[in-house]
Amino acid sequence: MQLSQLGEFGLIQKISRLSSLSKKVALGIGDDTAAVVGPDKGKYLLLTCDGVIENIHFFSGTPAYKIGWKAMARNLSDIAAMGGKPLYALVAASLPPSMTEKKALDIHRGLSAAAKRYGVAVIGGDTSRSRHGIHLTVTVVGEVDRTRMITRSGAHEGHVVCVTGSLGASILGKHLCFEPRVKEAQFLAKRFRPTSMMDLSDGLASDLQRLAEQSRVGFEIWADKIPISAGLRKQRFKKKQEIAHAFQDGEDYELLFTISPVVFSKLQKAWKKQFRLSLTQIGVVRPRNFGIRVLANNLSSKPMALPKVRNDHFFGKAV
Amino acid sequence: MQLSQLGEFGLIQKISRLSSLSKKVALGIGDDTAAVVGPDKGKYLLLTCDGVIENIHFFSGTPAYKIGWKAMARNLSDIAAMGGKPLYALVAASLPPSMTEKKALDIHRGLSAAAKRYGVAVIGGDTSRSRHGIHLTVTVVGEVDRTRMITRSGAHEGHVVCVTGSLGASILGKHLCFEPRVKEAQFLAKRFRPTSMMDLSDGLASDLQRLAEQSRVGFEIWADKIPISAGLRKQRFKKKQEIAHAFQDGEDYELLFTISPVVFSKLQKAWKKQFRLSLTQIGVVRPRNFGIRVLANNLSSKPMALPKVRNDHFFGKAV
Repeated sequence: MQLSQLGEFGLIQKISRLSSLSKKVALGIGDDTAAVVGPDKGKYLLLTCDGVIENIHFFSGTPAYKIGWKAMARNLSDIAAMGGKPLYALVAASLPPSMTEKKALDIHRGLSAAAKRYGVAVIGGDTSRSRHGIHLTVTVVGEVDRTRMITRSGAHEGHVVCVTGSLGASILGKHLCFEPRVKEAQFLAKRFRPTSMMDLSDGLASDLQRLAEQSRVGFEIWADKIPISAGLRKQRFKKKQEIAHAFQDGEDYELLFTISPVVFSKLQKAWKKQFRLSLTQIGVVRPRNFGIRVLANNLSSKPMALPKVRNDHFFGKAV
Repeated sequence: MQLSQLGEFGLIQKISRLSSLSKKVALGIGDDTAAVVGPDKGKYLLLTCDGVIENIHFFSGTPAYKIGWKAMARNLSDIAAMGGKPLYALVAASLPPSMTEKKALDIHRGLSAAAKRYGVAVIGGDTSRSRHGIHLTVTVVGEVDRTRMITRSGAHEGHVVCVTGSLGASILGKHLCFEPRVKEAQFLAKRFRPTSMMDLSDGLASDLQRLAEQSRVGFEIWADKIPISAGLRKQRFKKKQEIAHAFQDGEDYELLFTISPVVFSKLQKAWKKQFRLSLTQIGVVRPRNFGIRVLANNLSSKPMALPKVRNDHFFGKAV
């Protein structure tokens, strides 16, 4: 079977079955960071490793600074989504020999700017020649208090489903210059303890599915509450198309989390004082057999039909 | 300026100047592992991140298992060279959609086999599509007792210069199936404290230069003592050619270290009891202004002329 048929998740699943996890590893494949390890008594070490590749994650004409920013910010977003604090980054850069020095250093500036903004030290890495296009792989090491870590497996029936910010701006370029929600995630983890959390990287539809699987729950999502980005609004799509974009485009890098309704009302007040970024309830956690249903609003009972969800982000897609 | 003119070390130097290291980082760019960080009291965390790329680090026809082995083993070798114990690995794999599932899993088997052999847990990573060839980036996290860490900066004048194993087999395929010297390095670090150590990745000539720079010393190397691999011997090159191969081919992944002469004589006895692998004195540490001279033997005084050393491993070379 070719990888294009097997798909990314198929491959990861096969590899997971082949792997036997060490006892030193507190949590393996399947959450935001690649792994959680516990060398320290009170803390877990979080490790994440994500790449960006020319003509897969960005087009060739993309400004070099933005390529670097994205490569770093994706990983910071993963650490954030566990409630963690990013600490160190390693960068493996594979660059074409014909690239100008200026461009290579601009990539570095983008990487560094994102790292610096979130208090992360870029501590090294590897540079090599590439035969075709730019490949950047960034590894970020973070830490989280053992009692504050937020996984994807704790969503409870009846809890509120929330997202930060607005969705659907990634096709308009947000995927290259987004702010990873590090501060917001730490605020949530420290003071309000969401029951589950993840960052929206593959798109709300696909990411809800994974949250549902890992928490063994269903979701009722209200279409009229999905926060649509201003940029996407300006495109003047029909409402249903807007929602399909917000659901499926991916790379929003906002936080998706669940939280008890009681805590949520306190959170809303504290959030407004702290952040200008919006915080929106988009639905409720339902039992597993409910599945994932998108309703027009919280009074509706009939699921909306949205165009079929693309369930594999990488092996099938052009950019 | 293009990267092909600037070279890998040129680029790293420029990047180093742009970077400001955090106080949390005990040792930055320029040693075997990308970085040494100190979250724990008695230990340092070692982080390393190295990639292998199709048609740069291996030819397209290379068996998938060996590609995986090499990608993992390179990083284990870096942790070993600091005297550290490798613990966890993350793998970022970028694979062509046309690759068969079998081949992808064979890569994984190679990665896992090398990891397992040295007690390392592969704890996750990232998989994405590649447009051209295989790119694997492996990050390894290890640890080392703070008092046992061996850097590249401690070589002393008058000390013995040693290598493990034999050199020059990389062109005959050793670079794809070498054993990283994890056990040997830990044995050395724990019991004999070499004053400096590194793994031979870019070739003895280039690696001696870097050791000399970081330790601010010179080296007198005895050509007749360079351990030539049996495979290279079978090629029936002239002696000078053999030595040039051993000096320049790179990717031997043996340990190069310096140690006091008194400790060395004790080490030799203990080593023979412990390992079948050879251990060879190849010269002595000299003062900085001596430079690096290759002499025919330890009685000679005239430096040998060897073909010019290739000083950039990646941006200039085909494979």
